[in-house]
Amino acid sequence: MTTGVRRRMGVEERRQQLIGVALELFSQRSPDDVSIDEIAAAAGISRPLVYHYFPGKLSLYEAALKRAADDLAGRFVEPQEGPLGVRLLRVMRRFFDFVDEHGPGFAALMRGGPAVGSSATNALIDSVRQAAYDQILSHLGIANPPARLELVVRSWISLAESTALIWLDGRRIPRGELEAQLVHDFAALAAVSAAYDEEMGALMRVMLRDEPADGPFADLVGRLIALAS
Amino acid sequence: MTTGVRRRMGVEERRQQLIGVALELFSQRSPDDVSIDEIAAAAGISRPLVYHYFPGKLSLYEAALKRAADDLAGRFVEPQEGPLGVRLLRVMRRFFDFVDEHGPGFAALMRGGPAVGSSATNALIDSVRQAAYDQILSHLGIANPPARLELVVRSWISLAESTALIWLDGRRIPRGELEAQLVHDFAALAAVSAAYDEEMGALMRVMLRDEPADGPFADLVGRLIALAS
Repeated sequence: MTTGVRRRMGVEERRQQLIGVALELFSQRSPDDVSIDEIAAAAGISRPLVYHYFPGKLSLYEAALKRAADDLAGRFVEPQEGPLGVRLLRVMRRFFDFVDEHGPGFAALMRGGPAVGSSATNALIDSVRQAAYDQILSHLGIANPPARLELVVRSWISLAESTALIWLDGRRIPRGELEAQLVHDFAALAAVSAAYDEEMGALMRVMLRDEPADGPFADLVGRLIALAS
Repeated sequence: MTTGVRRRMGVEERRQQLIGVALELFSQRSPDDVSIDEIAAAAGISRPLVYHYFPGKLSLYEAALKRAADDLAGRFVEPQEGPLGVRLLRVMRRFFDFVDEHGPGFAALMRGGPAVGSSATNALIDSVRQAAYDQILSHLGIANPPARLELVVRSWISLAESTALIWLDGRRIPRGELEAQLVHDFAALAAVSAAYDEEMGALMRVMLRDEPADGPFADLVGRLIALAS
């Protein structure tokens, strides 16, 4: 009966099932260490049948990565309500959820390597970075950012990636602390830029206008003043 | 006569000449766009002779990259004298010199891609990051860093990489400004960590103890206070 049900799976349904099974395996171990045989066994089908749907491991990997990329980009979406710092903190929580769920696969992907360094995978990574960048600008309400704001946002995105990768390597710092720290890092990098550029200074004042006295930005400023004195 | 001199080049000398010629070409354009024929022509030898010294483009690319990596790691070395901020600023100048000299090749390498994403190239990139990390810890006088300091230093190194890559893409911000900004970014990221962790706070006070009133750190603090008021 089970076999009968399986046989009736449509082509697209079977492809989606295989992608799900592969993504789970690629998330748990470095993709180089996952074989088509394992994927076939986990999906309950034969190795030749996997090749019927995907010409090779790379194409299955790219399909799994596409699903993970769409998933991650979806987690960046946040209602445009309330203080900016609180919004960013919620996104950071969902980002670390994702990193937690896909740890070894995320690390292998971001560090590059034989199976994961193709042009297609690099283009996917860039598309997720772009989605993060677009979301942040949209929350800031800025359509045409000056070069210095673009630099702050893009370089902070790479800081968030590297912070997550370092966290995965031993998990020696509680992730909740790093989620808050990345929100503060964003404010700090913007403040450094604003300290030396008038246009960034004006943008910074607008950004912080609606931050509450008990929000993450105000908390940071209070602590920094205490640290400096 | 010139040909005669060329013929007398020893094996190691010829290899080193080819590496130099290849590095120049790989620096000016994406390595994927550089052919063995071009390298042979630039070195004034035949294509088969190139293959006599290097089995293929990848091995020549890896040798060129090794030379560039040694060069870059060498530029991180700085006398352990004077204020930390000024030392770091000098290193940032030499880092941007390197990025400037090797622009397209540096960008292609750091963005990954078919010819540049091998395990060997990734290991070389990691070795340069490690050299930067070791230098910074040595200047801070800390042999066994706590996890939070390791995070600040390693994530700042990735911030420096992404800042350089964004600069290369259009050079819309003067590099001198970015060199200073990265020094400030280091202080800002360390300060954020120190604001929430006592051990980092104590380290931060030691780091800033000998900073002069007209140094980059004091300048930043003054500007941030002005910005906040």
